[in-house]
Order: sequence, then structure tokens, then C-alpha cells
Amino acid sequence: MKTLDQIAAFLTSHDDYLVLMHASPDGDTIGSATALCALLQQMGKRAAFRCADAIDEKYQYMLDVVRPQQFEPQTIIAVDVADFKLLGELASEYEGRVDVSIDHHGSHRPFAEYEYVNGDASANCENIFSLARLMGLTVSKPIADCLYTGISTDTGCFRYANTTADTMRMAADLMELGANCAEINRRMFETKSRARIEVERQALESIEFHADGKIAVIVITEQMQAMTVPSDLDGITPLPRQIEGVCIGITIKERENNTYKISVRTFAPYHAASICSHFGGGGHAGAAGCEMSGSLDEVKAQLLTVCQQELEKTNSCRD
Amino acid sequence: MKTLDQIAAFLTSHDDYLVLMHASPDGDTIGSATALCALLQQMGKRAAFRCADAIDEKYQYMLDVVRPQQFEPQTIIAVDVADFKLLGELASEYEGRVDVSIDHHGSHRPFAEYEYVNGDASANCENIFSLARLMGLTVSKPIADCLYTGISTDTGCFRYANTTADTMRMAADLMELGANCAEINRRMFETKSRARIEVERQALESIEFHADGKIAVIVITEQMQAMTVPSDLDGITPLPRQIEGVCIGITIKERENNTYKISVRTFAPYHAASICSHFGGGGHAGAAGCEMSGSLDEVKAQLLTVCQQELEKTNSCRD
Repeated sequence: MKTLDQIAAFLTSHDDYLVLMHASPDGDTIGSATALCALLQQMGKRAAFRCADAIDEKYQYMLDVVRPQQFEPQTIIAVDVADFKLLGELASEYEGRVDVSIDHHGSHRPFAEYEYVNGDASANCENIFSLARLMGLTVSKPIADCLYTGISTDTGCFRYANTTADTMRMAADLMELGANCAEINRRMFETKSRARIEVERQALESIEFHADGKIAVIVITEQMQAMTVPSDLDGITPLPRQIEGVCIGITIKERENNTYKISVRTFAPYHAASICSHFGGGGHAGAAGCEMSGSLDEVKAQLLTVCQQELEKTNSCRD
Repeated sequence: MKTLDQIAAFLTSHDDYLVLMHASPDGDTIGSATALCALLQQMGKRAAFRCADAIDEKYQYMLDVVRPQQFEPQTIIAVDVADFKLLGELASEYEGRVDVSIDHHGSHRPFAEYEYVNGDASANCENIFSLARLMGLTVSKPIADCLYTGISTDTGCFRYANTTADTMRMAADLMELGANCAEINRRMFETKSRARIEVERQALESIEFHADGKIAVIVITEQMQAMTVPSDLDGITPLPRQIEGVCIGITIKERENNTYKISVRTFAPYHAASICSHFGGGGHAGAAGCEMSGSLDEVKAQLLTVCQQELEKTNSCRD
């Protein structure tokens, strides 16, 4: 494991950088990659980014921060990539070739020659911001927009438990550097596609309550998925647990051939991973998943039986 | 207009405080009042709070911060009250009797002997926090919870344009003082009543798009309102404008006798207040309101005609 100083020294003494994002790119990997490329270009280096998957149009303002340059990459950096596999379709091309990895996942599995992992950072963009300051680079307004986006999206706009006092102070500094915070947050959190609106409406229509409203179940049918792109379904799984009184929220996504992807969200003391372990799945105390097969009614019945047992273990739910 | 030092001196030299919230209490007026009462009690003073309206159960943890005391109030303080009328049913009782007003609304209309208004504060809880620090009082974990709640709720969890770098730094300090941020944000932003869920579902079902999806209209019927309490409808009016491509979002709330309360939200360059001014209403560039009467179809048609004119003035909508 390297220090940020060692990463800085490495970046100063190399050139012709290709910065890799993880597949299914989100605000933090895009913000990290684009800000890092722009900072490297500011140092007089050549830099470009790459991602296995297409980048949603709403992130375009970050891509525009990087000046297109023609060159043959010599140095490969991965940002916000917790595991080599998460490079997706790029993995085979870069196997054994990643020089530097900068990440913030506590669960990070090393794969690069130089590894910097800071699990206390809410977002990897915190690490890139720290690096820029350490190296005395200028964080311009467009770079501040990228870094703020990563921090804001990875913390659910400073809402989640990963948000620290440092996170808030870094965001304050980025605001003073000119980050267009209100507009970024509107774009990231307040804009829903018409397909998403329709999926939400149908999901709410299908909602079922059990156990005096302590369990809520929604079903995302194949037909609902057919009318959306994957990003339309982001943030759907927390929906049932958001309802007052619900301690166990279940989202059932229909797959082909009578198979289903199940997401379970719970409030303490109920344990999502414990529920999913009955069906060969796993996860965390509050969020877990599994796959099941059968008819929809059978799957629901099996899930409800296990959830009822979980409820009976103890009677109080965090209100 | 007084300085915060003068307010501090006043509080030190008086006693037996009654702190008034505004009617339809929100997180900021409740956080301000409860934190101020707890701080005054810490100074050895007697203090209690009062509000014209019932306080929603989700705010109970803030009320618990204030120790109940029996006394005859001698000194009246209003917090987060932009206009005397906003005391609601308490207004008649306290007319001409308010000693101190501490507020953060730029539009504040003075009504107290000692007025402190800081329009740069995102939330009035920023003012109370500054006051506590100025007076060298201890901001305990429960007081930090109250102050954080006010700041978080008035900024939409640091999302809105009123959020400043100072706001973020104060929130950072409150986190370090022990504020239970993730839990407060979950309670304030991620919990919806079942009635609210049903209203959202019906509103989305009723949604109409016009002008190639640039205008969206939802109707909140009397029947939908009958199944909710007023707080269930908080945050409903931004809903139509949150849909991708929508520049003008209209919410029509049915009132009795064929009258309607209209809320209009727009993105620049379209002007909400300009649209509402056609119907005797007003507001801001991005958010305005008016009242209309007639049949629902007539009202919609009139609104759409004016919105179409607004769209034709210019062709681009902030995307």
C-alpha cells in the first residue's frame, strides 16, 4: 500500500496516462477519472479516460473537462475500482497492466503495482481532491464540479452514514472553488425520466403490505423493465422500506424463465443478509439480495415466511 | 436591527423565556426553538416553547431536548418567523409583546423590540448555532441534533441553492459534536406515509404532458387531500418539474366550490411568476402560485394557453 505522497511522486515522473473507470459508471468514478485527467493535463502530461460502458448524457459536463489528446497510453490508472473484475469488458485488455489504483472501498482487492486505498473517504473524489492539494495543483471551477459530483452522488447528497465532517468541509471548499452545486444536485437527484416515473407509478400500484404494514413488497415486472434503460431503475430498491412503519422492504425483479432477483432492505434489528441467506444470497445487515425461481406467488410466499420468522425473533422495529 | 452580541447580552440579562415557532412548524423553526430553550436552560434560565399548530411525531426527539418547567413567561422570543402573521393562531395573544426575533428570511418584516435577521443563513438554526458559540455555551449531542435538523431540512439536505460553504462547515462541526446525521436525514427525507405514497401514485396516474413534454400538469383532488394530513403533501409541487424534459410543472390543488390553488415551477428562461400574474398571483422566477376558479377543464385550458405563450417567447429550456 502506498501513501498519497508516493502516488504524487509516481504521477510526476510518468506520462501518457489512461485513466480507467469501473463498468456501469457512476458519478464518483466519472468525477475521479475526469478530474484526474484534467489535473494531469494541467501538469503538462497527456491523459485520457476510458470506461467499458457508455456514460449517461447527464454526466457530459464532466467529460468536457478533459481535452482530447492523441497518444499511445503508457501508464494505466484505475479510479474507484474496488475489484479488477469491475472494469467489466476492459478487464481482459488490462490484466496485469494497471500501474496505479486509487480507491476508497474498504473491501478493495489489490490489483495494481501502486495501490492507494483510503476507506475513510466517503467518495474516491475526496482522494483525488486531497491529491490535487498535496501536489499544489489548481482546482479550477470545472474540476471542482467533477469532484463535487463524485462526493455528492456517493453520499446521496450528504445523506448517508458514510458522510463525515471531512466530507462536508471538502464540499465547502469545492463550493468556494466555484462548483455549481445546486445545479449538479438538481441534475443528479431531481430529474427523473418519464419511463422512471411510469415504473414508480406501477411499482406503487403493485405494492403489497404484510404483517401489519411491517413488510412491503413491490414487483418490477419484465414489461416494466422493457420500457426503461438500467439507470431508470437506480434507487428503486430502497422504495418499499421508505414507507412509514415498514421494517422489511422487498423488491422483486422479474427475470426470464420464472427467475427473480430479490433485493431486501431492513431496519435494525431485522437482518437483510440473514433473510437472503435462506435462499443462497447474502449482503449486509440492512441491504442484501438473492436469486429465486418459481412462480411469482410461490417466491413471494417463501420470502414472506422467512420474513415473518425474522419479525418474530424480536418485536420492535426502529421507527 | 441588533447584532448577535446585543441579542446575547439581552438573553443573559433576562429570564422566564417563551420561544415561539411559526405555525405549520418545520424542522428549522422546531430546531431553533428547542435548541434555544435547551441553551437557555443550560444558562440557568427557565424556558419553554410554543407553536400554534401540532408538531408532527417525527420531530419528537427535538422536543425531548427541552426540560419541562413550570413558570409564568416574562420574555417572548420568536424564531424563524418571517412575519408576525406566521405565528398563526398565537398572533392575537402576542401582538406587541414579542421581545426578540431571530430570523434568517431576507423578506423578514420586523415585529419585535430586538430584531436579529441574517439573510445569509441557509437556516435559522445557523443563527442559533452562532449564538451558542458566541456565548460560549455547550452544544451537547441532543442540541446538535436539533440544529443539524434545521439546517438539513431548510437546505433539502444541502441540495438547494441557499446552501453555502459556511452551511457545510457548520454541519461538519455539528457532526463532530455528535449529531446523528444519517438517522435524522433518513427520518426527514426517506420516510413517506402510506397516504403520501398513495397520493404520489394517483398524482403520477393523473399526470398530463403538453407541448412535446415541456409542460406537465398534476391534479391533487379533494378526495386525495381528504385521505392525507397536510404534511403528506410537502414536496409534492416540485414533482412535475422533476420529470426529464419538463420546463413548466403545474400542480393543481382542488379546493371547494370549483376553486383551485395553482403552483407553477419553471426552469429558466421561463418565468413562473409571470405565468401566475395572468391570474392575479405571483412569486419568484422559478416558483409561483395563484388561485383560480371554474371547472377543472377550463382552469387547465387557461393555464395551458398562458404557458404556451411563455414557451413561445423563447425556445430553449435549461436541460
